[in-house]
Formats: sequence, structure tokens, C-alpha cells
Amino acid sequence: MKLTTSSLLVAVTLLGAAVMPAQANNDAMLELLKVLRDQGTITEQNYQLLVNAANADKQASAETNAKVAQVEATTAVTEEKVAQVTQKVEEAPSVSLQGGHLKMKSADGEFTTQIGGRVMLDAATFSDDLGDESGSEVRRARLFMTGKMYNDWDYKFQIGYAGNKVSMKDMYISYNGLDSARLRVGNHKMPLGLEQQTSSKYITFMERSILTGVQEDAGEAGRAMGISSFSHGDNWTAAVAAHLEGTTSALDFDDNEDWGWGGRVSFAPIAEKTQNIHLGASFHHQEYENNGRDLGLSFRPEAHLSPVKPFTTGNIGTMDDGNAYGLEAATVWGPFSLQTEYAYFALNSAADNTASNDPDFSTWYLMGSWFITGESRNYAANKGEFGRVKPHNVVGQGGTGAWEVALRYSEADLENGDLGNTGDITTIGLNWYATPTIRFMANYNWTHVDNDNTGEEDVDGNVLQVRGQVDF
Amino acid sequence: MKLTTSSLLVAVTLLGAAVMPAQANNDAMLELLKVLRDQGTITEQNYQLLVNAANADKQASAETNAKVAQVEATTAVTEEKVAQVTQKVEEAPSVSLQGGHLKMKSADGEFTTQIGGRVMLDAATFSDDLGDESGSEVRRARLFMTGKMYNDWDYKFQIGYAGNKVSMKDMYISYNGLDSARLRVGNHKMPLGLEQQTSSKYITFMERSILTGVQEDAGEAGRAMGISSFSHGDNWTAAVAAHLEGTTSALDFDDNEDWGWGGRVSFAPIAEKTQNIHLGASFHHQEYENNGRDLGLSFRPEAHLSPVKPFTTGNIGTMDDGNAYGLEAATVWGPFSLQTEYAYFALNSAADNTASNDPDFSTWYLMGSWFITGESRNYAANKGEFGRVKPHNVVGQGGTGAWEVALRYSEADLENGDLGNTGDITTIGLNWYATPTIRFMANYNWTHVDNDNTGEEDVDGNVLQVRGQVDF
Amino acid sequence: MKLTTSSLLVAVTLLGAAVMPAQANNDAMLELLKVLRDQGTITEQNYQLLVNAANADKQASAETNAKVAQVEATTAVTEEKVAQVTQKVEEAPSVSLQGGHLKMKSADGEFTTQIGGRVMLDAATFSDDLGDESGSEVRRARLFMTGKMYNDWDYKFQIGYAGNKVSMKDMYISYNGLDSARLRVGNHKMPLGLEQQTSSKYITFMERSILTGVQEDAGEAGRAMGISSFSHGDNWTAAVAAHLEGTTSALDFDDNEDWGWGGRVSFAPIAEKTQNIHLGASFHHQEYENNGRDLGLSFRPEAHLSPVKPFTTGNIGTMDDGNAYGLEAATVWGPFSLQTEYAYFALNSAADNTASNDPDFSTWYLMGSWFITGESRNYAANKGEFGRVKPHNVVGQGGTGAWEVALRYSEADLENGDLGNTGDITTIGLNWYATPTIRFMANYNWTHVDNDNTGEEDVDGNVLQVRGQVDF
Repeated sequence: MKLTTSSLLVAVTLLGAAVMPAQANNDAMLELLKVLRDQGTITEQNYQLLVNAANADKQASAETNAKVAQVEATTAVTEEKVAQVTQKVEEAPSVSLQGGHLKMKSADGEFTTQIGGRVMLDAATFSDDLGDESGSEVRRARLFMTGKMYNDWDYKFQIGYAGNKVSMKDMYISYNGLDSARLRVGNHKMPLGLEQQTSSKYITFMERSILTGVQEDAGEAGRAMGISSFSHGDNWTAAVAAHLEGTTSALDFDDNEDWGWGGRVSFAPIAEKTQNIHLGASFHHQEYENNGRDLGLSFRPEAHLSPVKPFTTGNIGTMDDGNAYGLEAATVWGPFSLQTEYAYFALNSAADNTASNDPDFSTWYLMGSWFITGESRNYAANKGEFGRVKPHNVVGQGGTGAWEVALRYSEADLENGDLGNTGDITTIGLNWYATPTIRFMANYNWTHVDNDNTGEEDVDGNVLQVRGQVDF
Repeated sequence: MKLTTSSLLVAVTLLGAAVMPAQANNDAMLELLKVLRDQGTITEQNYQLLVNAANADKQASAETNAKVAQVEATTAVTEEKVAQVTQKVEEAPSVSLQGGHLKMKSADGEFTTQIGGRVMLDAATFSDDLGDESGSEVRRARLFMTGKMYNDWDYKFQIGYAGNKVSMKDMYISYNGLDSARLRVGNHKMPLGLEQQTSSKYITFMERSILTGVQEDAGEAGRAMGISSFSHGDNWTAAVAAHLEGTTSALDFDDNEDWGWGGRVSFAPIAEKTQNIHLGASFHHQEYENNGRDLGLSFRPEAHLSPVKPFTTGNIGTMDDGNAYGLEAATVWGPFSLQTEYAYFALNSAADNTASNDPDFSTWYLMGSWFITGESRNYAANKGEFGRVKPHNVVGQGGTGAWEVALRYSEADLENGDLGNTGDITTIGLNWYATPTIRFMANYNWTHVDNDNTGEEDVDGNVLQVRGQVDF
Repeated sequence: MKLTTSSLLVAVTLLGAAVMPAQANNDAMLELLKVLRDQGTITEQNYQLLVNAANADKQASAETNAKVAQVEATTAVTEEKVAQVTQKVEEAPSVSLQGGHLKMKSADGEFTTQIGGRVMLDAATFSDDLGDESGSEVRRARLFMTGKMYNDWDYKFQIGYAGNKVSMKDMYISYNGLDSARLRVGNHKMPLGLEQQTSSKYITFMERSILTGVQEDAGEAGRAMGISSFSHGDNWTAAVAAHLEGTTSALDFDDNEDWGWGGRVSFAPIAEKTQNIHLGASFHHQEYENNGRDLGLSFRPEAHLSPVKPFTTGNIGTMDDGNAYGLEAATVWGPFSLQTEYAYFALNSAADNTASNDPDFSTWYLMGSWFITGESRNYAANKGEFGRVKPHNVVGQGGTGAWEVALRYSEADLENGDLGNTGDITTIGLNWYATPTIRFMANYNWTHVDNDNTGEEDVDGNVLQVRGQVDF
């Protein structure tokens, strides 16, 4: 008996626990019971009963071990499944509708795509010398698709629809692989004044001032087919550009291409989020290769629906070239902001080289705004322009939106010899930013044009215009 | 020996199991063996062998515990990973291509975006007095982007392309934050008749009846720049609107804006999905601020490609204003449906205030349709219009699509004094809905125009026109 | 005592371990201790101490079991969560931005959607007889939305913008449910020559050769409103089509529709990825239902901005109908490729049935290209056209892109009697594929037109044109 008993015990001793199955086998108990029975310490009957109990213990232990093994296996499978689904989720491009803007981004960040647009719905009524009339229009309806490609490149495709016509807006390719500058080719905004750089989605009044109008027409910039370089730091920007077609309205092939070049710098001595000062300057040189086409510029009273364009240079004849100089300053001080620009234009007549026939113009504006609800205009010192205003409380999320009042005074001197006139426009504005993307605007302006120079009657009139705007 | 043995046993007794490591330590066995050896109940040799066995049991138990701890830790990590990936998945906007429509929705439901459009490809052949000719065109090619923003707002941007031209369709902003009504501003459909409210994607014939043509031209509504309020219950709707530009074709600024206002109500005494009755009425008042522009309306024979417009009011001169009245009824009874509208127009002449010169027109139609394959037209009682038909069996999913035959009789009385004419159009139609989004249509019509009034020859002619249509 | 002890032991024996709780209960030890104490083998004191130790072991075991149960439950919950999130992820449509192209696909593959477009930005300068001028334009700006619907259908919506005008491009519905052929209806490319079939995104020179121009104008195909069938194997294609409006420029309804039909076959005796030979032939018959409209075709010198169209047929009068025959061959041999096409046109005059007045034209070109950086032109034998070139090294991923030089000679004989002229164009091209989607091109060409036939002066001139191109 002893030999039998010992055979297992010896095996355990010799081989060690390592080779034994990793289970609480209760072997010691079973061996002890055998020893005690063999020695007669316990009876055969008690032995049998105790062995049964020990085996029950042993089986319970085995069952526990089986369960642990099963849970281990399940957990391994689950882990694998989690790894798979996590990989699938993490490798998928992310889609965002944040703020109502559809943006997508590849997992590695190499590619992005955004699709969006804007709609601006206007109505206006004109009185006195501006005509006793009223009108409505879709001022801007634009759709764009833009994105990053292969890390260093981006593109933008943007079409504008207005009055059942189409116009090309941003159509460009950019290269961002240089540390020092972003290079861009295609139809895009040339560097010019602060107001012109700031998106129409974010300007404070319904229309940019007459200054930007003169800059775009006389300076012949705005959006153009060209190439540009844009550099910036945290609180400065520097851009230079050269372009062929002077304006987006002349994309069709003309006899010859007007071309030009220019640049703009901006600097913010204070560049806090809600407390900043912006200073800027721009220059633009324009060649007029239009083979004898006479130049005569007229401007609306800062109201796009206006049936008349009372501000005019008169027909100044054919120009060789021209220079446009611009100065800018702006400040945001909490809910308050001020902004001003001055622009001077010196054109060289083709007909006559004497300076007396070379026309020059100047124009400036000063505007201020106050957010009654405490928001601040959103100045980006590293872009040299203003961006989106986000109301503290959004309508639709329990809030009442942001409210802003604004005042602007613009002046233009388009007189040269006995041609052209001077005038000014005073505008008060009320803006309601219901959400960051939906804005309602009302502008009332007083326009005065002094025609003493030409002998025609002066123009005095008022405009009330309203806008509903959404961008997405 | 006893003391040594007892020291652990006493500790266990005093400190209790709580402070012991939570492992089946097999300590009782080891202690018992000591006791039994110390008492001489078992031999030293057996003791050693049994201790080894007990230790093996103990180690096995420890291993089990280690595994449990490991699985516990793994499970906790996995749980965390699952929570992370679940959160990422649940916070991501959902993207759906269901039915071929691209829709996105933010996780919180505050924002949605949908991009889609429609293409309708037409060909037609005309005979007899309508000209012995044939033609083809892209009848409608539209692209839209629409979405919800900040819970309570939505917008729509929709451009139509036809014949290499662009036209503004829906361009609006809506506010849905009121319980009682949805407010909308921008270019959108004014409330008018049932056919006009129903999307061109869902109308039964290729073209709406001449009634809708007269409503849109004489009533000067259709899509317009305006503001509207739309309320509804489960089986009724009520809409009122005021607008500036009367038609989308006149978005350009005109001398003065035509303006108008109107409303429409609808009620469904029975409003089951496939068994319902629709009743409706509309009114529209139009001011003609067009400073002496003569009004003369002409209409095609319910075929857009038609080279001629034989239905005409003649030149009725300059109007001051006009009222348009409409009545509607429709019913769906399983695969069968009937629909009818009557419209009456009373215009006030600007030239003469005597009623004799104030023209009036009337027009009506009655149409019926039968889905041979058993589908029903899809009436939405809470919108007061018809929607998308979904075939029971889709081509591409093993089915053969839905087949519908339809018949329409339209009549227009445009006579006033010795101006204008009367006429009618009878159309038979066959529609094949291959999928819910792809439909092929064939229409044949008999047009008769009675020119007794004007002394010109009557017009009798036929049109066969076919369409392939997809919306996405 | 013995009875008490035995009661549990007997129960274990009778009922078996199966009904015992699945725990290592240490019951055998406790029973053994009772037996040993009852027999006096161990003292009461030792018994108590040993029972405490056994209970501690028992409790530890119970704790292990509890933990296992807890882990089991946690794992089950986690498994369920993983299943849920996995289902949500797997049932969601996939979104891809791979290569900068936005593509979506439903989980079951029944639906897909892709949104994209292209922008081509051109500038050119002309010299000598082509005019001493320069220009720039957005050559192509296109936006499309395309997708699969209900397995067997697909659609495409594509709008082109150029020079502030809109033109319909692909506007079609396809049925792919047949094994033998893909059926397509709507505005789409008719089967014609190799160059015409190849997308403007992938052509080697900035403009297709004058051969394609003559094919599209004299053959009156290109994109048209029609129906087509396209079949293919791994190395062959066969397409037939019939169309109404001959060109996309005439989508407006005309007096009568020009119509035509034609077909194209292609075969690749060698069809390896980078080593292949393409052979093809096409035929197109065109009816001119234009009621006496005189036909006179003129062509630019393979430069879209060209202010003049020096290649001309002269006014050949009114045609009844015409046939166009085309032959194609191309080969890719590693980085080298050759491509040539020949086209012959035989028109039947309406004015006179004598063959002498029936004009005929012919034109051909031969071009070769070499990828300095080792890439190959991407020929698809199952489509019978060329596709996207992927540079081995992408700019933005550490590479420098692909560089290709190319040479083309084109000739056109448009002489008939004393009308029309002949001429040739030699072009050298340099292409830089910065990424698979962004390409910069420069073309310089020498154009010579021989006007001996007409007695006018010959035309000799050069064009330098450059392009920046992106597609997304």
C-alpha cells in the first residue's frame, strides 16, 4: 500500500509542481486520506466519505479553472475584436458638422475636404435722388469645395451665382511645403486693403466702403488670375503677388491682358484675442494693356441694388498704368472696435505725358462698432484680417444671439480737372448674429455727391437695406 | 514544535481571514500535516511527500489566482478601450447613403447636412399645328445643399441648370424654433396650388398642367424672394406669405419690384397612408409695379420643348393688380388616385377703371392615375402635397419596378373681349419607377386651341415626349 | 458525533458533486478535522486552529470564485458593447479621402456617392501671325456628383464653368444590370477617337490635337444627348451609340434636331500594365437636319486662348449628312509611349448630289512621350483609353513628382475645291506631375497654315502656354 501511495507522492517530489497541471488538485488531501486509512487512523467508511468530499472540492476547483480559461479565451477574442473595430474607426476619415460646416479629414491628416457656401438675401429701398424705388436680390450665393492634398498642397473651387449669372471666385492651387511662405496660383484675391481681404461673410456693413470699390476698379485688383506669396508670424503678415487679368469680371480673353503686381504688409503691436491694434499698408501697380480703351469709373452709394452710380471719375481717357497706395489701422477693445483706411491712386495717361493730365483719386473711411451683448470683433493678427463673430448665446441653444451697432463715414475724391466729383456716405448699421453662421443686417445710409466740378446737380439720397445671411 | 505550529494558526485566528491574502493557501493542510507529523501520526517521510503534494496544490491555486488577476486587468483595459472607441463612434456624425441620398447628422442632432440634386433628360416630337419638329434637352439639372443648424434653423442652397443657363431655385433661411409655425425668408415657393407645391420630382405627368402655368405667370408667384409662415397638424396645413420679386425669372433689379401676398390652406378628412382625401384652397394678390409694362401671357401645350405657345391672353395692356383664387381636391384609394384643381384670376387694368376692361381667366384640370403594380401615390396630409413613390420591387434588387398609367384633361379660358383664346389638352401617361429615385416617363397629348375669338386659325396638334429622371 | 459528521459526507456521496456549489469548499478538510478530533487524533485546540485555517482557505477560494464570476459578467457586457459598436461601425457607410477624392459607400455596397471636380488654370502668349498677344483663363472648372444606386444603376451630374458661363457635361443615368453591356442615357460622350475618349485630366498635351476638334465639329459628336451601349473584355471594348443633339453647345431647342449614330471598337494584343499595344477604329454617321444652315468649320492652333482660328474649311454650304472614319494605335513601353490617330470625313452636300461638291477632310497626328522619372502612361485596355498617372514619388510625401517630355505633330487637310486650307502643328510639352492630382504643364508649338488654295497669306506663328491643374 505504501508503495502505491508513494508512487504519486514521489513523482510530485521528483518532477516538482512545474509539470503538474496548474490546478488545485487537492492531491495532498487524497494522499493524506490514503495514508491515514492505510495506517488505520481513519476507518474505511470515513475514508470513502472523505474521499468523496475531497473529490467534490477537486471538481469545484477544476470548474473554476475551466471558467478562468474560458474567460481568458473570450477576453482574447474580445480584445482582438476591439483592436479590429478600433483600427477601422481610427483609420476612417473623420467627418465633422461642427458649427454647421461639413469638414472631412483623413486619419493621417494628409487629406482634408470641406464643402460649403453662403447665401445673402437682400432687399433695399432708395429715396430722393437715388430713385424712388425698391428691389431685392440674392446678393451672393456661393458654393465651394476645398481641401488639403498630400500634406503640402491645397486647392479651392468656388463658384458664385448672382442674378442668374455665374462668376468664378476662388479657383486656385496652393503649395504649403515651404516654411517661409505659402505659394498660390490661380484666381484668388490679390493683397490689397483690410476691408477687401476680409470675407464678405464677416464685414460689419452690408457692403464694403466705396474705398474698396475704387481700389478694385482703379487698382484693378480684387480677385485675379495670378500668383502670390503669403508669409506671416503671430502678429504680422507680408504678401506679394503678380497677376494677369485684373479683375474677375474680365476672365474672358481680351485683346491683351492687363497685368499688375503688388503687396501688403500688416503688423499688430497688440495682438490679444479681444484687445488688439492692427496697422497695415499696401501697394499695387497696374498696367493697362487695353489698346486705347477709355477708362471711366462709377460707383454705387455702398448699396449693391442701387439703380444709379452717382460717384464717378468721368471719362478720363486711356491710361498707361497706375499706382494704388493704401494705409490701414484698426483696433478691437473688448466690445468696441474702430477701423479706418486711406487709399491714394495715381494714374498715368497714355494720351499725354504731361503730369497735368494724369488723374489721381483718394478715398478714406472711418467706422466704429459696439457689441451691445459684449462680443468682440474677431481679429486674426496672423492673417491681417477679420473673421467670424461667435455670439455668446446662440438662438436655438437657448440664447438670443449677439447684437452690434455700427457707424461708418466714407469719403471719395474722384475729381480731376473738370472731370469727376466728390462725395460722402454716412451709414448706420444694426447686426443680429442669431448663430455664428446666421446673421441679419439692417443698414441706413445718407449719400451726398458734390457735382460742383461738372456743373451737374448734386445728388442727395438715402438707402435702407436689409440682409439675411447664412454660411455653411 | 507545537508553538511553532501554533504561531501561524493563532495569527490566523486572531487576525481573521480578512487580512490574509485572498488565495486558497492550503495553509490548513500544511498545518495539519505538521501537527500529524509532530504527533507521530504520520511518518517524516510521508510528511515530506504530503507537504510537496500540498505545496503543488497551493501553487496551482496561486496560478489560478494570478490568471484571474491578469484577466481582470485585461478586461479593465479592454473595457476602457471599448468605452473610448464607442465614444468616438457615438460622437461622430452619422453618414447615410440610404436610398442614394447623402445625408449627414451630428451626434447630438443639432446639425444636419444633405447634398443632392436631380437630372431630367427629355426628348419630344411635335406634329401638325405644333410644328413638325423634334427636340431634346436637359429639362432640369439641379444641385442642392441643405441642412439644419443649431437645432432651430435650416437653410437651403439650390441651383438649377438648364440649356447652359443658371437659375436660382431654393435660397432660403428658416426658423423652426416656434411651436406654431415655420418661418422662412429668401427665394422659395409661395403657397399656391397642389400641383405647384408638389416637387417636379413627384408630379405624375412630365409637365404640370396649364393651370399651374397660368397661376405662376398671371398670379406672378411660384418661387419668389419673400417671407412665409407655414403651420400644420397631422391632417391640415396653413401657409401665408408675402414676396417682393414675383418670379425667379426676374431676380435682376427692375425699375420697381412687383410684390404680392397670398395664402393656402389644406385639409384631409381622411388621411390614411394609402387612402385619403385632400381638400385645399389658395388665394394670391399681386401688385404690378411695372410702370406701364404691357402684360401678355402665352403658354405651351404642357410640353417644355414646344417651339410654340399657342395658348394666349393676347396683349391685355397694363395692369394695376390682380387676384388669383384656387380650389383643389384629390384622393388616393389604394393604387387609384384622382386630382383636380380650378383657378380663377381677376386682374384690374391700369388704363381704365371700368370693369369691362378688367380681364379675367379661368382654368382647371382633372387627372387620374392607376398603379398597375399596386403602389399608391404618396400623399402627405401634414404637408398638403404629394411625395416620393417607392416601388414595391426595385430594379436592381430583383424586382421590376412600379408601373403607373395616368390620364389628364386640362382646360384654359383666356378670352377677354376680342383678345385671347380657349383650349384644352388631353394627356395619357405611362410611368416606370425603376427605383424610388429613377423614373422613366412617356406622355402623349392632344392639344386643341379654339381661336374663334381672334379670327386666327385653330391649333390642333400632338406631342409625344419621354423623360429619364434621377434624383440623388 | 459520527452521525453528524457523516450526514454531510453521505449527502455528498449520494447526491454527487454535481449538485454541490461549484466552489473549492475545503469541505473534505473540515470533515477530516472533525473526524480526527472526534477520534482524538488531534486536540480540540489544534482542531480549532486548523478549522480557522481551513475556513480562511475556504474564504480565499470563495473570493476567487466571486472574482471569476464578476470577470465573466464584465466580459459578457463588454462583448455585447463590442458587438454593438462593431455593428454600428460596420453598418455605417465608409468615407474615403484617398488620393484627395471624396468617396462614400454604403456598407452593403448597394450605394456609392462621389463628389469632386477639376480646375485648370491657363496662361498663353501668341506671336507672329497668331497675334502678338497674351491671355489667361480658367480653362476648365468642373464640379460633379456621381454614384451607384440600388446595385445596378448609376448616375452622373457634372457642370462645367468657363469664362463665367455654364455648360452641361455628363448628365446621365446608366443601367449596369446586364452582363453583356452597360446602357447609358443622357448627355455623355459618344464613342469616337482615343484622344476624345481620354479625359482632359489625363491627356498628355494641354489641348487635344486638331484631329479631335475636326471629329467633334464635322462629326458632330463629342458629348451629346443620346443612348449608348458599352461592352468590354479584359483587352477589348465595343461601343455603339445614337444621339439627338450633336453637341453640348446646342442643347437649346433648335428648329430640328441633328441626329447621328456611331460606334467604336478597341483591342489590345498586348495588355500589360506598363507594356501594351492599343488598336482602335471608330465610325460615326451624322444627319444635318438644320434646314439650310451653312456649315463652315474653323479651328484654333491647339491652344484654347488663341484669338484666331486659322485652320478652316471655308463655307462649304448646306450638308445633308456625313460619315466620319477613325483609326487609332498606341503603345506604352515602360516610360515611353507612342500614339497616333487618323480620321477621314466624307460629307454629302444638300445643294447638289454630284460627288464633286461633296467635301471631304482628313487629319492625323503622331505623338510620343517619355517619363524621365520612369513612370508609364496608364492605359486601361478594358476601357480603351488612358487614365491617371501616379508619380513614383509625390511632392508632399518627400518626393519630387514625375517629369514627362512629349512631342506631337498634327496635320489637317481641310481643302475642298478652292475652299479651305491645310496646315500642321508641332508641339513640345513638359509635364510635372507633383502629385497624382496636381499637374503643371508647359507647351510650345509651331503652327503653319498653307493658304495657297484660297490665295490668302499663309499663317505662321507660335504659342507658349502653361497650365496648373488639380482634380479632386
